[in-house]
Amino acid sequence: MSKRNIYLKTIPPEKAVQRAKEALDRNGLLSTETIPTHLAAGRVTAGPIIARYSSPTFHSAAMDGIAVRADDTFQAREDEPLSLSRGTQFEFVNTGNPLPEGKNAVVMIENVVQKDADTVRIEAPAFPWQHVRRIGEDIVATELLIPQNRELAPCDVGALLSAGIYEVEVRERVRAKFLPTGDEVLNFLDKPAPGAGQVIESNSQVFMAYAASWGVDAGWSTPVADDEDTLRTAVLDALSDGNHIVIVGAGSSAGSKDFSRKVFESIGTVLVHGISVMPGKPTLLAVTDERSGHPGRLLVGAPGYPVSAVVCHEKILAPLSSWLQGTAASEPVTADVVLARKTPSKPGMREAIRLAAGRIGDRIVAAPLARGAGMITTLTKAQAVAYIPEESEGVDQGETLAAELLVPKADLDRVLVHVGSHDNTLDLLANELMGLAQPLRLVSSHAGSMGGLTALKAGSALFAGAHLFDPDSGDFNFPFIERYLEGLDVTVVNLAIRHQGLIVAKGNPLNIQRVDSLKNEKVTFINRQRGAGTRILLDHHLKEAGIKPTEVRGYDNEEFTHMAVAVNVLTGAADCGLGIFAAAKALDLDFVPLAHERYDLVIPTQYVDDPRITTLLELIRTDGVQQKIATLGGYETDLTGRVMEPGMGLKG
Amino acid sequence: MSKRNIYLKTIPPEKAVQRAKEALDRNGLLSTETIPTHLAAGRVTAGPIIARYSSPTFHSAAMDGIAVRADDTFQAREDEPLSLSRGTQFEFVNTGNPLPEGKNAVVMIENVVQKDADTVRIEAPAFPWQHVRRIGEDIVATELLIPQNRELAPCDVGALLSAGIYEVEVRERVRAKFLPTGDEVLNFLDKPAPGAGQVIESNSQVFMAYAASWGVDAGWSTPVADDEDTLRTAVLDALSDGNHIVIVGAGSSAGSKDFSRKVFESIGTVLVHGISVMPGKPTLLAVTDERSGHPGRLLVGAPGYPVSAVVCHEKILAPLSSWLQGTAASEPVTADVVLARKTPSKPGMREAIRLAAGRIGDRIVAAPLARGAGMITTLTKAQAVAYIPEESEGVDQGETLAAELLVPKADLDRVLVHVGSHDNTLDLLANELMGLAQPLRLVSSHAGSMGGLTALKAGSALFAGAHLFDPDSGDFNFPFIERYLEGLDVTVVNLAIRHQGLIVAKGNPLNIQRVDSLKNEKVTFINRQRGAGTRILLDHHLKEAGIKPTEVRGYDNEEFTHMAVAVNVLTGAADCGLGIFAAAKALDLDFVPLAHERYDLVIPTQYVDDPRITTLLELIRTDGVQQKIATLGGYETDLTGRVMEPGMGLKG
Repeated sequence: MSKRNIYLKTIPPEKAVQRAKEALDRNGLLSTETIPTHLAAGRVTAGPIIARYSSPTFHSAAMDGIAVRADDTFQAREDEPLSLSRGTQFEFVNTGNPLPEGKNAVVMIENVVQKDADTVRIEAPAFPWQHVRRIGEDIVATELLIPQNRELAPCDVGALLSAGIYEVEVRERVRAKFLPTGDEVLNFLDKPAPGAGQVIESNSQVFMAYAASWGVDAGWSTPVADDEDTLRTAVLDALSDGNHIVIVGAGSSAGSKDFSRKVFESIGTVLVHGISVMPGKPTLLAVTDERSGHPGRLLVGAPGYPVSAVVCHEKILAPLSSWLQGTAASEPVTADVVLARKTPSKPGMREAIRLAAGRIGDRIVAAPLARGAGMITTLTKAQAVAYIPEESEGVDQGETLAAELLVPKADLDRVLVHVGSHDNTLDLLANELMGLAQPLRLVSSHAGSMGGLTALKAGSALFAGAHLFDPDSGDFNFPFIERYLEGLDVTVVNLAIRHQGLIVAKGNPLNIQRVDSLKNEKVTFINRQRGAGTRILLDHHLKEAGIKPTEVRGYDNEEFTHMAVAVNVLTGAADCGLGIFAAAKALDLDFVPLAHERYDLVIPTQYVDDPRITTLLELIRTDGVQQKIATLGGYETDLTGRVMEPGMGLKG
Repeated sequence: MSKRNIYLKTIPPEKAVQRAKEALDRNGLLSTETIPTHLAAGRVTAGPIIARYSSPTFHSAAMDGIAVRADDTFQAREDEPLSLSRGTQFEFVNTGNPLPEGKNAVVMIENVVQKDADTVRIEAPAFPWQHVRRIGEDIVATELLIPQNRELAPCDVGALLSAGIYEVEVRERVRAKFLPTGDEVLNFLDKPAPGAGQVIESNSQVFMAYAASWGVDAGWSTPVADDEDTLRTAVLDALSDGNHIVIVGAGSSAGSKDFSRKVFESIGTVLVHGISVMPGKPTLLAVTDERSGHPGRLLVGAPGYPVSAVVCHEKILAPLSSWLQGTAASEPVTADVVLARKTPSKPGMREAIRLAAGRIGDRIVAAPLARGAGMITTLTKAQAVAYIPEESEGVDQGETLAAELLVPKADLDRVLVHVGSHDNTLDLLANELMGLAQPLRLVSSHAGSMGGLTALKAGSALFAGAHLFDPDSGDFNFPFIERYLEGLDVTVVNLAIRHQGLIVAKGNPLNIQRVDSLKNEKVTFINRQRGAGTRILLDHHLKEAGIKPTEVRGYDNEEFTHMAVAVNVLTGAADCGLGIFAAAKALDLDFVPLAHERYDLVIPTQYVDDPRITTLLELIRTDGVQQKIATLGGYETDLTGRVMEPGMGLKG
């Protein structure tokens, strides 16, 4: 094997940032520039700004009305109105007009009675400077208007222009370039169809979007090949182009094709290799020296896995960019959330847990999403992220944790937290709910039917989707509810009757016709996880057919969703799996029907009047949505939206 | 007088927004467009997005190491390592490589002992799918990836590209154009020097900066003249250019030159005229009809005063723009603040109070800034804004209020809250403090020396600047501290000795030489406010000279700062005022010295070790800052930074 890198001691990201700050000379690295004031919002002042003109530059009327001399009005009273003559004693003024010579007060037009063109009456005296904006009231020429190092807000632009400051000297924006690397990554601009071993490059664009939000002047390149010299050239070119930061995407780990560290060491000093956060660990920081031709610049090796890369962006690049520019680092809003599932954590590493979160009663409940560094969809699904501290071995179900919110806090009231069995109709509902005038976000944690009931018991779901068949009674869900949710009053509403069957390859090459076929040594099965209603159904059919689980090849291979089962069949990883028709149809696979079952929504009765639940139930009772469910194929909507009672079975 | 508008009944801004929403057909108004995915961050999906490719598209190694078949490894144990042969039993793999045919697990390279090029040993069995990213683990082709109406975050861009979605259909951005109006407003692009009756137009640029933060595609025009037909043409042109919203700046009030309502009525229906918020009241909302040629668009009359305009932007335009686009309205972070001063409010109107706020002990203390709608600097100085409800008559000193923060909450710990006498050295310090590696923001509320002591007593300032002369003892500040701050342990540190004198016009045309000159009928004086140390000094000198206040013309005209006094002299509004040399020098006026005095920082001893105070004291003890103070002129720094004791007078 080729030579591998060895990580330096991993350190917390805050320490890594601190180490980089100490190694960089911020004022030497970033210059200043003079730009038009009206384009300066978000920029940081390079020095103090002194007002050139006062505002107002003259005494002016603050109201529409008449300008008077206060002394002339002292005798006016309600029962004895005072007449004033235009020209000598008053002038009409509009808001903003300069006060005529000799006048020092304004009477509002509402308090003026006009007798004729040149005579008015007032019923109360004016006090001096009443309704007058006095010269310099707001801004005094020569005074400090804005100090140095101020990030200019929209209003600051207004103040500067008002004071006659038409250009401002500001700090340069940070210029940063992202270089994705890897022979296996495809340039998305080519609109590629990835083959085995290939992935579509996207980290550069996630970086670009982050950088825009930081106010960084960012660029990116097409993928750089896995070759040390090629990478070095690309980095040096980016430095020559004037970038203050060069980020190399992927290649910062310790693998044989990870060249970032070698390249960084050849043109600078490595400061950090490895931060003690998972995902995010393979983050590399270096500062260039003379050998680069551009000493004192920052080099960053960002992890290749998308979730790791995001942690590097948020915990390393965001604070360093804002420090360099002098802009405010964005401050995450935090909230206490109750963990819906026990979450173990590796001591010695801070672990980032993305959370599907929503308000339930007076708590924010958060279900941990999958933790793989490559699981980019956990980023799109999460409403919050929690960091389990280094010293912790994990967090128990029901424990409270401070989490950083990824959506506005108010949005958590607009989340429907579902834990339970996965069904394609939930995707359909998720999309429909986002189309409402007041959109609702359906957040679904796929834990199987039993997992859903457990979540209801723990108070960590607003509702649970379940399709639990009880062979003894021939009924659905209620026998399980009675057994596992004793004391919890629930309302059960049918979502659909669905077809379960064996998903097989197109054309059914192995001629799988019944559950008996699974006993065949040549047939590799792909199973669902324990607690899934589909697995209970399978076990029921295996038992009826007299087949033992050990006789089914692949029984122990588990997937968590119907679609994942179907993908296994599509790619040949398995020959067959039990699942719903919709999944087979979506991937153009064949389907051998086995049974109909009731997929119900189990709702704690205390939430039935929650506006989110009433909206959901109204939605599934519309013809439009029922037609869309039917169009998916493999569903009957005869019972959809109806409240179920024990013993109804499939009859309703 | 010409015809005036009459306000419709004012309504709360939330109601105004609601009324506009009801009058607009969002989906009819905004179209959709297809754009490259990598440019779509911040945009809103027009429909559901279904994954085109799975991710991964193949089973792949999740770690660097060797790919094996789990079955082949079951016998491996620590005391009995298992040898594996390359090719048949294992293959080397790097993270991301496709799993070789027939292999279903990866052993991390750290757990592999390499014997020779083709033989390795392992000491533990691999379980199936260990360290393998399975096909579709993250994204399953055909599944819902992102629902409709989702505002795309940076990570969503990554997920879309990873799933082979290279273009997305998104909602159009709102297009909006701002038309400033008024014969008196000057185009800032001309870099004008405003004369009497003229103001520099800046509202359009404040709007532009806000619009950028909302993600609105915004434009603006040079000022439109105060003429109904000209304005109508400008509005119609902006509609023809495809703008969904046209905002007319100023002219929305009820004055005789306020044409916005007439113009709006001629091409649409006025929905709202007047919101019940001060400042902000003269906000006008209308929807266009067929007469405009572009029915269903939104017309907004924004107030001309800058603070009113900002309220209109934040409370009306921000929520309407985000609603039209389907983006999240930014959610202000709120905090409970303790009000440092009694603040009356007009019942029936919600009043926006801009606050200078900072943490003192365990409270956030907030001093209300001036409330004029024209006071643009209150926008640049505020850290928070509180809204006093319509039904309230005001808020007492010490009352707690929920305020919207305008800076990150952590910044409030980096604010030095000063209440007290104004001095130009404070501006200098404010700028220097922003130049520190850990910048501090000096927030100064000009309340006079006595006001500062009162604030200390109320716990609403970290320190107070005071220059209170006691004629009986000849000492500074301590006699007042003993009288008014009984029981509060304070530390007094000198900032500078300063020269007070009579500020007079250049060349001193009225030959003012002593305080006696103020008795002269021809001399108009400009005074400082009650409680100001400078006023106490004046009263002392008047008394010594045997002059009664009533004998001084202008004694009742008050300003709050030295600079404001100097501006009065500069513009001829007054002939003379008592103030510091620095103010006269800054405006190139003459100065007749009257007395030296000690300007001290009075610091409650409990805050002396507060890092903000230690930083401040370190700063004023540096030679660099003392030299800069001396350069201002009119200051001696002999005592600067020294702790004062009672009875020291000017000697130290």
